[in-house]
Amino acid sequence: MAEQQLQNWVLMVTAQTPTNIAVIKYWGKRDEDLILAINDSISVTLDPAHLCTTTTVAVSPAFDQDRMWLNGKEISLSGGRYQNCLREIRARASDVEDENKGIKIAKKDWQNLHVHVASYNNFPTAAGLASSAAGFACLVFSLAKLMNVQEDNGKLSAIARQGSGSACRSLYGGFVKWIMGKEENGGDSIAVQLVDEKHWDELVIIIAVVSSRQKETSSTSGMRDTVETSALIEHRAKVVVPKRIIQMEEAIQNRDFPTFAQLTCADSNQFHAVCMDTSPPIFYMNDTSHRVISCVEKWNRSEGTPQVAYTFDAGPNAVLIARNRKAATLMLQRLLFHFPPNSDTDLNSYVIGDKSILKDAGIQDIKDVEALPPPPEIKDKVPAQKYKGEISYFICTRPGRGPVLLTDDSHALLNPENGLPK
Amino acid sequence: MAEQQLQNWVLMVTAQTPTNIAVIKYWGKRDEDLILAINDSISVTLDPAHLCTTTTVAVSPAFDQDRMWLNGKEISLSGGRYQNCLREIRARASDVEDENKGIKIAKKDWQNLHVHVASYNNFPTAAGLASSAAGFACLVFSLAKLMNVQEDNGKLSAIARQGSGSACRSLYGGFVKWIMGKEENGGDSIAVQLVDEKHWDELVIIIAVVSSRQKETSSTSGMRDTVETSALIEHRAKVVVPKRIIQMEEAIQNRDFPTFAQLTCADSNQFHAVCMDTSPPIFYMNDTSHRVISCVEKWNRSEGTPQVAYTFDAGPNAVLIARNRKAATLMLQRLLFHFPPNSDTDLNSYVIGDKSILKDAGIQDIKDVEALPPPPEIKDKVPAQKYKGEISYFICTRPGRGPVLLTDDSHALLNPENGLPK
Repeated sequence: MAEQQLQNWVLMVTAQTPTNIAVIKYWGKRDEDLILAINDSISVTLDPAHLCTTTTVAVSPAFDQDRMWLNGKEISLSGGRYQNCLREIRARASDVEDENKGIKIAKKDWQNLHVHVASYNNFPTAAGLASSAAGFACLVFSLAKLMNVQEDNGKLSAIARQGSGSACRSLYGGFVKWIMGKEENGGDSIAVQLVDEKHWDELVIIIAVVSSRQKETSSTSGMRDTVETSALIEHRAKVVVPKRIIQMEEAIQNRDFPTFAQLTCADSNQFHAVCMDTSPPIFYMNDTSHRVISCVEKWNRSEGTPQVAYTFDAGPNAVLIARNRKAATLMLQRLLFHFPPNSDTDLNSYVIGDKSILKDAGIQDIKDVEALPPPPEIKDKVPAQKYKGEISYFICTRPGRGPVLLTDDSHALLNPENGLPK
Repeated sequence: MAEQQLQNWVLMVTAQTPTNIAVIKYWGKRDEDLILAINDSISVTLDPAHLCTTTTVAVSPAFDQDRMWLNGKEISLSGGRYQNCLREIRARASDVEDENKGIKIAKKDWQNLHVHVASYNNFPTAAGLASSAAGFACLVFSLAKLMNVQEDNGKLSAIARQGSGSACRSLYGGFVKWIMGKEENGGDSIAVQLVDEKHWDELVIIIAVVSSRQKETSSTSGMRDTVETSALIEHRAKVVVPKRIIQMEEAIQNRDFPTFAQLTCADSNQFHAVCMDTSPPIFYMNDTSHRVISCVEKWNRSEGTPQVAYTFDAGPNAVLIARNRKAATLMLQRLLFHFPPNSDTDLNSYVIGDKSILKDAGIQDIKDVEALPPPPEIKDKVPAQKYKGEISYFICTRPGRGPVLLTDDSHALLNPENGLPK
């Protein structure tokens, strides 16, 4: 080691981790420090092509402290959540040898080596899209690879969980369950994959990012307030959710979209209900969110069977899960009809992600949006209501894979020479 | 009787009945026809000077059918709810004699005599101000007087309840409890007065009527959907509300405003929470409602003890109950600061009811509204947010008395000659 420290080597790993959206919601902790939930939750992992975090972690004897950059800006690592993740990963580090570079790090050396972390979200920040889930999952996954941690993703999920509860679900693709566990130390509070992303590959996901300047209650303080003050949360956690978890797992296994949609919508609404039952009440959805729900509910009812499920996290953005591409196309037409962009917005930045759905919807130009006819289910109600500018943009995506290592050095966010952001 | 029918006499009674607002909410029926609730509820009766229904009922052998006019427009009495009230009152009618007019009606004659009803609300209709509560209470109360029904207001409340559940609570002034009862026929599902309007006469009530063009779910179908689909409503009705009823009765007896406010706000929020937990979800509050809550919560928190309680019924309007006149004045200043009227609205129509609170607030002119400083509790957050035009108008009022007979004939809404609307 003494010899190596003279060299200014930098060893790096880059990984990409998806974000996820819960269909049975996590809301409420039984342990604030370890981040242990009061109920199981189930999520779908989103395609990292459209929503993911990329993180490069580097180690070098030249680093004199742990440092991190998020989207190019240095942030503090002193928070308990970062410290917990770093400590837990270091404790599981193994010997690492890079013969090409002539680097050898012994298991015990990791306690004295500092790391640099650079993280980048491929979606707009502050859009309320659960960037902390992907972020902590990616931090833990990439550090584990760097430090040659031998544990599987389930064990890693229990570490990511200590950064951000929902992060544990981003360690897998497809549909993922976070088992709340029973142990005091949280060792059994881990994520498991229910099915991979190929199991139900018909599903299409459209995210409506709602324009909003309201400051929202952070989910950490929000769920603490709910657990302390809601008269309904215990009944939800102990009686309602356990049944829904069983039904949801079955619906996912069977690709039973009507049951899946019913449970997804009901559980999103119940999560927002217990937020409202909090003192002081927490309102994450706004009038635009309500309008999106109303649009989906009307269409689903008119079709006789659900075409689209909706779910909302701790913010006004709608995540819409369509049963297939056809339903997604018809949904997007409805959304664009009711929520046309402001006149200074071009279509290309109004619908992002998998733009092929736009094509299927016959929309190539902002003029095509203006020409959309009212959906048949509202045709009798003239004038049809339009809410221009209430949505910032739409992201078209699908269920996706879990974390991957990016071996192509060009993806690294840190400079291989000095371990500083590129 | 035969002799009297030759004469074209008209016998009339006019009564005035207040509306009421629940502080522990009624939401959900265990019997749809009899209108029996799944939990007790408690309300405060509003001063009829500002919010009430006036109803004139008339009987004449010349009438060939039961007829009713609401706010000057004839409406059908064929609905089951009207029929239930008319049948129950007729079944309890007694002999009536008017010596001056030489009219004698025997108990049994009432089955063959038709009535005319004219009803008028002294507040704008369709403002979501529970006009049906005052309306059915007034219908039943005035018919009972006309037909010389000997039963007390408690028994009458069980009849009014069959017109509109919350109507039973408008048979009394002050604070009123609707006991859900146990009997199959609803005989014990009645209203009782907890305290009269003098018991806690410091309270001041401000109603913010929210501008809204959204169509709302009717409370009848809304509560049916909640009972059928919410996973939380049973826990609310069976576990949460019974405790709150006991605590609320005690708070009212002791004029304990902090407890009263905490329970009132929590129960309003929980009612809206179970609405949201309904499939499809019901949203009665909108962004403006949320902003009013946020304004009240911030101020209460900054004062260390509640100054104002809020409660919302099946619509976006806020009912604010201030602990005293001082608190009401400070509340009104805050409301006018955040929600100034549209420029074409004059102050006189923007704040109605007891305008003396405006004077206390130092506001005589729309210019005084514009000059209001931001409330101290938000001063650090510049720019302070203003939501011009989001409120249609404010009504300043207070707890009030129960139904009264208006003996001055000039108040009658029907013509004494022919029993038709004046």
